[in-house]
Amino acid sequence: MISFTNDYSEGACPEILQALTKTNYIQLSGYGSDPITASASDKIRAACGCPHAGVHFLTGGTQVNQVVIDSLLKSYEGVVAVSTGHVAVHEAGAIEFTGHKVLTLPHKNGKMDAGDLKALAERFYSDPSHEHMVFPGMVYISFPTEYGTLYSRSELEALHGVCKQYSLPLYIDGARMGYGLESDANDLDLKTLATLCDAFTIGGTKVGALCGEALVFPKGDTPGHFITTVKQHGALLAKGRLNAVQFDTLFTDGLYFRLGRHAIEMASRMKEIFNEKGIRFFIESPTNQQFVILPDEVLASLSGKVAVEIWEKYDSASTVVRFATSWATREEDVESLRNLL
Amino acid sequence: MISFTNDYSEGACPEILQALTKTNYIQLSGYGSDPITASASDKIRAACGCPHAGVHFLTGGTQVNQVVIDSLLKSYEGVVAVSTGHVAVHEAGAIEFTGHKVLTLPHKNGKMDAGDLKALAERFYSDPSHEHMVFPGMVYISFPTEYGTLYSRSELEALHGVCKQYSLPLYIDGARMGYGLESDANDLDLKTLATLCDAFTIGGTKVGALCGEALVFPKGDTPGHFITTVKQHGALLAKGRLNAVQFDTLFTDGLYFRLGRHAIEMASRMKEIFNEKGIRFFIESPTNQQFVILPDEVLASLSGKVAVEIWEKYDSASTVVRFATSWATREEDVESLRNLL
Amino acid sequence: MISFTNDYSEGACPEILQALTKTNYIQLSGYGSDPITASASDKIRAACGCPHAGVHFLTGGTQVNQVVIDSLLKSYEGVVAVSTGHVAVHEAGAIEFTGHKVLTLPHKNGKMDAGDLKALAERFYSDPSHEHMVFPGMVYISFPTEYGTLYSRSELEALHGVCKQYSLPLYIDGARMGYGLESDANDLDLKTLATLCDAFTIGGTKVGALCGEALVFPKGDTPGHFITTVKQHGALLAKGRLNAVQFDTLFTDGLYFRLGRHAIEMASRMKEIFNEKGIRFFIESPTNQQFVILPDEVLASLSGKVAVEIWEKYDSASTVVRFATSWATREEDVESLRNLL
Amino acid sequence: MISFTNDYSEGACPEILQALTKTNYIQLSGYGSDPITASASDKIRAACGCPHAGVHFLTGGTQVNQVVIDSLLKSYEGVVAVSTGHVAVHEAGAIEFTGHKVLTLPHKNGKMDAGDLKALAERFYSDPSHEHMVFPGMVYISFPTEYGTLYSRSELEALHGVCKQYSLPLYIDGARMGYGLESDANDLDLKTLATLCDAFTIGGTKVGALCGEALVFPKGDTPGHFITTVKQHGALLAKGRLNAVQFDTLFTDGLYFRLGRHAIEMASRMKEIFNEKGIRFFIESPTNQQFVILPDEVLASLSGKVAVEIWEKYDSASTVVRFATSWATREEDVESLRNLL
Repeated sequence: MISFTNDYSEGACPEILQALTKTNYIQLSGYGSDPITASASDKIRAACGCPHAGVHFLTGGTQVNQVVIDSLLKSYEGVVAVSTGHVAVHEAGAIEFTGHKVLTLPHKNGKMDAGDLKALAERFYSDPSHEHMVFPGMVYISFPTEYGTLYSRSELEALHGVCKQYSLPLYIDGARMGYGLESDANDLDLKTLATLCDAFTIGGTKVGALCGEALVFPKGDTPGHFITTVKQHGALLAKGRLNAVQFDTLFTDGLYFRLGRHAIEMASRMKEIFNEKGIRFFIESPTNQQFVILPDEVLASLSGKVAVEIWEKYDSASTVVRFATSWATREEDVESLRNLL
Repeated sequence: MISFTNDYSEGACPEILQALTKTNYIQLSGYGSDPITASASDKIRAACGCPHAGVHFLTGGTQVNQVVIDSLLKSYEGVVAVSTGHVAVHEAGAIEFTGHKVLTLPHKNGKMDAGDLKALAERFYSDPSHEHMVFPGMVYISFPTEYGTLYSRSELEALHGVCKQYSLPLYIDGARMGYGLESDANDLDLKTLATLCDAFTIGGTKVGALCGEALVFPKGDTPGHFITTVKQHGALLAKGRLNAVQFDTLFTDGLYFRLGRHAIEMASRMKEIFNEKGIRFFIESPTNQQFVILPDEVLASLSGKVAVEIWEKYDSASTVVRFATSWATREEDVESLRNLL
Repeated sequence: MISFTNDYSEGACPEILQALTKTNYIQLSGYGSDPITASASDKIRAACGCPHAGVHFLTGGTQVNQVVIDSLLKSYEGVVAVSTGHVAVHEAGAIEFTGHKVLTLPHKNGKMDAGDLKALAERFYSDPSHEHMVFPGMVYISFPTEYGTLYSRSELEALHGVCKQYSLPLYIDGARMGYGLESDANDLDLKTLATLCDAFTIGGTKVGALCGEALVFPKGDTPGHFITTVKQHGALLAKGRLNAVQFDTLFTDGLYFRLGRHAIEMASRMKEIFNEKGIRFFIESPTNQQFVILPDEVLASLSGKVAVEIWEKYDSASTVVRFATSWATREEDVESLRNLL
Repeated sequence: MISFTNDYSEGACPEILQALTKTNYIQLSGYGSDPITASASDKIRAACGCPHAGVHFLTGGTQVNQVVIDSLLKSYEGVVAVSTGHVAVHEAGAIEFTGHKVLTLPHKNGKMDAGDLKALAERFYSDPSHEHMVFPGMVYISFPTEYGTLYSRSELEALHGVCKQYSLPLYIDGARMGYGLESDANDLDLKTLATLCDAFTIGGTKVGALCGEALVFPKGDTPGHFITTVKQHGALLAKGRLNAVQFDTLFTDGLYFRLGRHAIEMASRMKEIFNEKGIRFFIESPTNQQFVILPDEVLASLSGKVAVEIWEKYDSASTVVRFATSWATREEDVESLRNLL
């Protein structure tokens, strides 16, 4: 059986395992105060073109979203996200757990529209009873989105513009950042993206690491006593080396981008196969997640041979299914899919 | 320079790195639903003699304390701990962050006295205004304690008895469990300990793993929808394999206990050295953490040669210093210490 | 200037002021342990036909919603409400402040549809990733709703049925209960309503009291140690008499219902006037809040003479405006409105 | 039976009931935006000598403590209080409920010692692991304290000095402010006190009102969007007039101070009686709460005739008992006590 269920089915890219082994007996101080953390941070600063950025390593995606959002919001503020945003739906209420509301906007192919955001802010401030409502305090988007789609540079500039106008920090969840940056459809690089937001993550878990998300405050304005806040949220690793070694490796010689590129190439080939087989797309995704509408008999025929993620029923005779590629996807498995369909 | 600063200075024991590498390309489902997690859980159930135990893997010590305590307490309850308990002092308010007070008792060599606990419960329930106070809702102890000391079987039985009398779940933080179980002074084994509490952890981070704490509910009464709660706290790893492979390895062929034993042997040798050199102990610790009173000129002489943790000033001419051994401590480093003192 | 801005513009009905004065020097124990609280509770139990009900007095509407919802939900659960529900929009995030998400459904004239609720529950439990989502843990509705509309008996029975099927406690926010019960369109009485939910409030603030909401658990299953929870939320009055005297008065000789009836009569007369003048209704409300579409020149003509609440722009030439009557509305003020329109 | 159980046994002073009645039918806007709230605020500003103070009215003591402390602290900070402080013991964990730890210092006759506070701050910042601990973020004291004692001007200056040095806002819980200010032993007036702290309350509930605490930020630096925060905590009254009318009355013609003075005079007379009868004091209190050590046979002899609050057992034959006077205490009741003892 081959699996395209998700992009976190395997362990880590071999370079990471080697680096963990190689550095294993070096005695390092704890909690991220070690030189490998410093090295990894520097490499990320360089990749982002932000020499003064605050860089921090956390373990998981929900965790980092929770910590960032709780750190940037005042207690009476909420975070604005689209209805399909990870923080709005699939984090078990981790944001509300910290006391903050997720204020939702309708999504457009998984994306937030700058006009919708502007309208929300205008409506809020013009409502005479807005002091009895949750203040919009920051904006959350994901790049790529939960549907695999990407903000274009102009879309991100528009969002950034509205955020600036209303003094709303803009945070980009980059759990799959590598797959977005390396997409053929992408017109943003990390350096540009870093100028168009206030905080973002570079996801490791889904792009070659065992765990870990790098959190970047591009302007260097990490919230005060951030280590204490991270600790308070139960998110501070004693062995900071675990995340540090991984990101130090990923950001050496462009490995992170190569891993991203591989997944994109595998996804492109998969798209060709779907087109070739006349399989319709549920949504046009230029990244590693492909959402297609499979006739139920086709879906049944894959059973036991190809594992995929069932997204939702499309109609009585077909189903939306997600195929995900990753840094670890093997060319031969994609070819097997061609034969199976 | 050699370091006895703490027990989390190195990476992981080599068996773990090998297992991570060996299992790396096996495609596994996420979030702990994979067969390696099942295997690791079974091995821990066997080691604890609890065939029906709930076993869960979290990443860090503060995190697991926060999740367990928040799960077991009702919203109007607090957790009872000694004043030196990790949850009371060194977790940046992670318990209060979830809305619960830490109710403190004075410590006795880092331990909670069953009589003190009983007195607290009696005092609370006999106070006519206790409905305006935080209810004692569970008890937190650590084994070994933050001072390296151990509860004897009879001490734990006494605490357990008081807990039962007042329906207080007893939770044991076993961040250094392996070093406690393997101490020559210990008269508790894992199976007995499991019968004397309601939840406990088996720490990986400090006993040979890169990260990870195994959380055990020996009676099988894991709080309902615990995965959702773990996710809500930002504590659910996508790649559950990371913790699972490590614990599966640690609980194969008694590795966890051998690692613990090694640290104890190194600590015993260190104790001999301190005795030989006439260095006084600040506290009698039978485990891997040794607290000694170093004359300040001795401390100065070690500078640049031996790294230790400064605990607190003892008097104007001497300082309490912690020397920690671990699974990774090298015999030759202990011998170097002998020569340096 | 006359005002129909809201139903909390005046102080209290004179009977309450007299009762406060009459009981003023009786020395009473604090925090609701006094005999007037007991008497008020008994009168409410009788009015609800629930001899074993738990009855508690809190000060304000947001406060009681916050305390009830936080008490009834488990930590990983959220409350289901319609998008226009008070807890969803106008409580400044008081529910999220306690760690819980408000899960919203679209409203139908301010009401929740039983079919929508059933669909939400079905969708949730059939979603394979629902363990990563907030569990629907209870249902919040208001009676009358924020738009002045009412659930019919059959609508409430349908909702109650779905709630039972999915073990969701049903909570009714009765901030304007008196105005709902006394509406000519209403086919529910307090005793029937009490059998069709798990908790409800009887609002005092908007129906003749200076402050105060009576919270009723009709089955007598008040959450354990509720006084402590109320205290923890900062919601326990030292002088419990303040709420108790007011509700004891309101529930003597049917005063609460008479106050409600007066507002309904004033609203009916107002409706006649609107019909007579050809003013369109924005929504059909059978209670004390009337939402009409005023041409902007009419609205301008009222300026300085009649105060109302601007709801929202209807179109470029007209505005939705709320006229509220209350227990205190004077017949002559309604007549003045007739002349002014 | 006469009662000295506490200072909140009666309703309100008659002037307040008259004012509520007199203003009852004036239509006022809600949530504190009315002219009576403005008038009451101005009178309090004048009494405090702070023309630019922020003044806000909340309903209860625990509530206002919770809102102020949660507003002034950053999320990783805790509030420093003495072990007997109301927020530390008798508020059912209302502070922890908002995510903040109460850091306790030993009390000296119910008071915080400036030296102890300085030592705590020094110890904290010199601890190398303080980033893993809760930061001291503000200081809570009560005036009078829970034991009825008072800070002298020099003691308050000393505390204020340490607070300034460590940038810790100083908050004074004045639930019984009137009884402190009017004590013969007091050398602080409201204007001086206002210069020596960052926020304080003037308690109404225990000094003549039905409910209500006035919260003052003497420098005018009310936290941003405070109304929203108050609403979020469930603490915003719809009928702001309830608190406003009461405080407007209390601060007209010095009524608040006269009420305070009466209680002090009654307490002085009571002290004479205790001295005359050879009854020992448990603590020297110069305010309205008197703590005495009653032989158990004396306590028994009062049963059914005089109600008091049992504080704690003193020894096997005697009990600490609190006698409280208030604005409502009748001279004849004090004389009855003389005869009964």
